[in-house]
Amino acid sequence: MNERALLEHIYQTSTQSDSVLIGPGDDMALLQFDSDKLLCGVDQLIIGRHISKDIQPELIGRKAVARCFSDIAAMGGIPAGSLMTAALPSDTDNAWVIRVFQGARDAAEEWGGPIIGGDIASTQEASKPMFTVTTFGTVPSTAIQRNNAQIGDVVYVTGEIGNSLASHHLSFTPRIAEAQKLIESIEINTMIDISDGLGQDASHLASTNTQLVIDAAMIPLREGATIPKAFSDGEDYELLFTSTMKPPEDIATAIGFVQRRTNEEPKVVTTKGEDISMLGWAHE
Amino acid sequence: MNERALLEHIYQTSTQSDSVLIGPGDDMALLQFDSDKLLCGVDQLIIGRHISKDIQPELIGRKAVARCFSDIAAMGGIPAGSLMTAALPSDTDNAWVIRVFQGARDAAEEWGGPIIGGDIASTQEASKPMFTVTTFGTVPSTAIQRNNAQIGDVVYVTGEIGNSLASHHLSFTPRIAEAQKLIESIEINTMIDISDGLGQDASHLASTNTQLVIDAAMIPLREGATIPKAFSDGEDYELLFTSTMKPPEDIATAIGFVQRRTNEEPKVVTTKGEDISMLGWAHE
Repeated sequence: MNERALLEHIYQTSTQSDSVLIGPGDDMALLQFDSDKLLCGVDQLIIGRHISKDIQPELIGRKAVARCFSDIAAMGGIPAGSLMTAALPSDTDNAWVIRVFQGARDAAEEWGGPIIGGDIASTQEASKPMFTVTTFGTVPSTAIQRNNAQIGDVVYVTGEIGNSLASHHLSFTPRIAEAQKLIESIEINTMIDISDGLGQDASHLASTNTQLVIDAAMIPLREGATIPKAFSDGEDYELLFTSTMKPPEDIATAIGFVQRRTNEEPKVVTTKGEDISMLGWAHE
Repeated sequence: MNERALLEHIYQTSTQSDSVLIGPGDDMALLQFDSDKLLCGVDQLIIGRHISKDIQPELIGRKAVARCFSDIAAMGGIPAGSLMTAALPSDTDNAWVIRVFQGARDAAEEWGGPIIGGDIASTQEASKPMFTVTTFGTVPSTAIQRNNAQIGDVVYVTGEIGNSLASHHLSFTPRIAEAQKLIESIEINTMIDISDGLGQDASHLASTNTQLVIDAAMIPLREGATIPKAFSDGEDYELLFTSTMKPPEDIATAIGFVQRRTNEEPKVVTTKGEDISMLGWAHE
């Protein structure tokens, strides 16, 4: 099956939606959009680097989409649509590719951002297959940015942290609904989703003069997780945010606070003074 | 330089624009959008497969963007923004990557669709570097689709065709302005940009019961081009469209007409009866 036939096979099973004015198969897709502000982001999933090739293919596709939708949640957004590409070594099994796309398609539709276009290209044998997912969203109220922790804020996290690679990284649901509930009930100063590791991602919330202080004992640990590994495990896809207001208890747990920082100090420390702002996935 | 540092270096030189509400560096970008309809598409450029690695890096970046913007033109759209990712073997020269991104950034800005986000990932040594560009656009009037040639239409093409690999494929300007002028002056039934080859791309304009008949003698050949190679060269990035109305002469040339087709007949033939609907880039 060549690139085009494979793409046609994948898209012929796509669900139609009223918001998809032009779907896959044309030069570009056209999406009816419920806003005049476009939230957009893109992420690459390399098989054998970011995820094992032995994982069930539907779960690979699901994860490719889920990690992008987690970014939408972290911005305070709602998914509207997605594009998905594959770059595949010439000896890739077509049935495997189709299953990856099916997993992606089902997840994207379930979460309200159907896949409306894409591209498939061949690379040389022995290179790693990769999938790139672009997602679009709307922002019902205000987009919530990074780098905006305020002195006196409390630091909160949704769900549980650590040991995500046991299974959570394949089964998590992006915290889109939780983010919307939070935004409706409290004012959030800054937010991110934890993908690289609690330590490193927390450092992106600090501003030029604020430092996050994390109390390790307060972190809600996932089964099998340990401190301090929970600081660096990553792939939690939970929301980390700061606020002066108290969020609903069933959504988030307080794990620290924000204080003044001078330029020489780390962006994230534990209550014991350890610098954890570098802990997590190494972007080499 | 690691993935993140490279990305930061690339984006710190990005021009700010009023329409970019949140630029690179957050979970996602936020774009002020002049429409409630989103035109979106994505394309992958693999170095050493789709383009030679010996090409000047700025021109590689320019082309990665230009071919996507050519799709916007073919839909009757106006660029609004772009995302660009790179998947790079671990031994890639950072200076080369930065130059590719600079070429892409300059082109994207010039054509009105600045790069507002992206991702960089490392792949194994000896794999081919690749760049993925996602583009967004608006549609001022109606989006023009494929597969909609009407019996009695004349087939038109902008510019010149053939021998594009001599230099045109690196220097072309996407036909965005020409498409808008065409839409303002005539009614276009169907349109595509010629990337894979005149023969193959023309076949996408045919509908279930229409056939395009191309008069080879009428094709405006680029210097050094020959017929029939012009049918399959591809990379012209000219607009191919059909209409019952006459477009401005300085924009397009008539090269054929549309007639009734039965299921057994090819989608595109020459006036001499040759089937040219398969000629062009093989999507293997």
